[in-house]
Amino acid sequence: MELQTQSQEVDAPTTITIKGILGLLMSNTDAKENGKRVISLGIGDPTAYSCFHASNAAQEGVVEALRSAKFNGYAPTAGLPQTREAIAEYLSRDLPYQLAAESVYVTAGCTQAIEIALSVLARPGANILLPRPCFPIYGLCASFRNIEVRYFDLHPEKGWEVDLDAVADLADHNTVAMVIINPGNPCGNIAETAKRLGIVVIADEVYGHLAFGANPFVPMGIFGSIAPVLTLGSLSKRWLVPGWRLGWLVINDPDGSLMSPKFVERIKKYCDICGGPATFIQAAVPDIVEQTQEVFFRKTINILKQTSDICYQKIEDINGITCPTKPKGAMAFMVKLNLSVMKDISDDIDFCFKLAKEESVIILPGIAVGLKNWIRITFAVDVPALEEAMERLKSFCERHSY
Amino acid sequence: MELQTQSQEVDAPTTITIKGILGLLMSNTDAKENGKRVISLGIGDPTAYSCFHASNAAQEGVVEALRSAKFNGYAPTAGLPQTREAIAEYLSRDLPYQLAAESVYVTAGCTQAIEIALSVLARPGANILLPRPCFPIYGLCASFRNIEVRYFDLHPEKGWEVDLDAVADLADHNTVAMVIINPGNPCGNIAETAKRLGIVVIADEVYGHLAFGANPFVPMGIFGSIAPVLTLGSLSKRWLVPGWRLGWLVINDPDGSLMSPKFVERIKKYCDICGGPATFIQAAVPDIVEQTQEVFFRKTINILKQTSDICYQKIEDINGITCPTKPKGAMAFMVKLNLSVMKDISDDIDFCFKLAKEESVIILPGIAVGLKNWIRITFAVDVPALEEAMERLKSFCERHSY
Repeated sequence: MELQTQSQEVDAPTTITIKGILGLLMSNTDAKENGKRVISLGIGDPTAYSCFHASNAAQEGVVEALRSAKFNGYAPTAGLPQTREAIAEYLSRDLPYQLAAESVYVTAGCTQAIEIALSVLARPGANILLPRPCFPIYGLCASFRNIEVRYFDLHPEKGWEVDLDAVADLADHNTVAMVIINPGNPCGNIAETAKRLGIVVIADEVYGHLAFGANPFVPMGIFGSIAPVLTLGSLSKRWLVPGWRLGWLVINDPDGSLMSPKFVERIKKYCDICGGPATFIQAAVPDIVEQTQEVFFRKTINILKQTSDICYQKIEDINGITCPTKPKGAMAFMVKLNLSVMKDISDDIDFCFKLAKEESVIILPGIAVGLKNWIRITFAVDVPALEEAMERLKSFCERHSY
Repeated sequence: MELQTQSQEVDAPTTITIKGILGLLMSNTDAKENGKRVISLGIGDPTAYSCFHASNAAQEGVVEALRSAKFNGYAPTAGLPQTREAIAEYLSRDLPYQLAAESVYVTAGCTQAIEIALSVLARPGANILLPRPCFPIYGLCASFRNIEVRYFDLHPEKGWEVDLDAVADLADHNTVAMVIINPGNPCGNIAETAKRLGIVVIADEVYGHLAFGANPFVPMGIFGSIAPVLTLGSLSKRWLVPGWRLGWLVINDPDGSLMSPKFVERIKKYCDICGGPATFIQAAVPDIVEQTQEVFFRKTINILKQTSDICYQKIEDINGITCPTKPKGAMAFMVKLNLSVMKDISDDIDFCFKLAKEESVIILPGIAVGLKNWIRITFAVDVPALEEAMERLKSFCERHSY
């Protein structure tokens, strides 16, 4: 007998998740058959490689906070005051104004910051504008909150620039926000557009500062006096500790005039139902953000620049795949499949599954981030593994091309 | 100019939160005026007292996992496999069947487990049955998910037994679940009632095993073959580490027949948008649950039994407040105000604010958990602090009684 309460019959949203599809690809590898160790270029978690290890200082800061036995209890749901203060100070370095600690909400990674941002914006009939490509958690979270999703394209040939005309065409009086991934987009025009449309800009800056092209990283919060900006970020990528689950949601409203007090109150209340990050990790954040040396960040940037160059050059050399824009930041980039020169590949999913099976190389099909017949390659991998993976990718493409 | 997007104008739910009201009480203390240090009997976070410190083994288990540098990356969103396995093993000790690791979802504390349970059950028109008194996060979370809340009373004179007739009267075809707090309630009848009503039982067992009366702790999961049970728990209380944010949501469905596959799929998907607990803390869980000695738990239980006895006896001795049932578990209990013998106290909020101001003792007004003109006293405090607080409570009541 199955108790089929109506509640249990609500379907789960059908959105693809990156981890879900990577798990399937992983189980499709056949190292025994092809004799090759698995190399994953699938996800922005470089911690498996020793060149991307957390700093000893950060690790020992957490150990010290834990061993003090002062931080085993609950933190305030918005975060420890000293943690909020430290994050405000850290972010203010790149802003033309001083962020208040009260504008910072400490979250269990950037994922929870996304969840809070979308949940507090949800209301019946609401829609949200997402870029394509986009991190799929936005779509999944929106569907759980019954927020309609509308996608605007980024232009691959123009360095993945936002098509602001498309944004304006998609928006209506039920549009509550647009999401941008930064680094990656120009910011001033976006703020002006958001102002005109009367919507919030959610700036996902989880890859903030991981820029290695000609342009420096420009935080969207700089434009917080033009349009209301919620900035999402975390220690995950810059400090190489995604598993620590220490993120933030920040209200960038320097004049205190763009966000209504009710909306701020709603964020505060929402934090009360969130699990939040461990108190002792929060307690270590002031030391971590104040004391991490520039040389630590510089090392990561240098490796990422090197590995992205290796990828980019190798791809120029491979028939059947092209990269319209040289990667200038983050840990992954999009590569276009030219299916017309491939003899037995039907689409990006087919490409990635065959690649996993034959070469034990894991690459994300573009459809997982909204771009069919593209693939997303993560270059946050050490050089030997990356070179081997690219070599195998080349053999694979040669074998499957006319 | 204030950009008043419609989205920003959605109000925050008005539910009182425990931390919110305790913060107000704390700011109402006047230690300079009354010369007394602040003693809080307000919240179930005993970690400030050395008699309630985490075990060294648990702490060092986390240090080891962190220093291994193997757990700085992402965990699967449902939790590390070894963590799910360890929690399944731990909970199975008290069940007549073996829980599968796949039935366990690792969460950022019990708070996130509540959030997941309510979010996956939400659908338009849904209602949920909550006990009164109840942890206010349930009501707050339900209001963010647009779930209507209906309260059933617990009988103070019958050891806070569930009024199952009231439950049946409240339920209709839109009822998705009922919540019980355990230890505290008899379980078999509840499962039968839930079965008849076709609803899920959410068993909040964050205080599981913290029982020190005549009756042992009986997990609700025992009745998982009668009605579908979601068990929520965490390391927080039993291991005295609420700030570690390590909890779980468990599907108790031993025959695999009561929960629909779609519902299970919805839980899995929902985990993808949750922040989750730190990977290195998860990695320490197998050691923590397997190796913590009974003597550690016994010590906590003994102190709680002692401190609850002190409270109970002292209250018998105080005019104006009564405790209908001797506490038999958890870390707090409800005490009834007899306002008719008090000369200048208007209600529980007035009582608690005056007590904070005059005596620097923080006690939670019952209204925060749904019971007006009751107060909730936490006895997870060391003996000297508790005795002093109870002495001050007595003076206060004497001063304000006829």
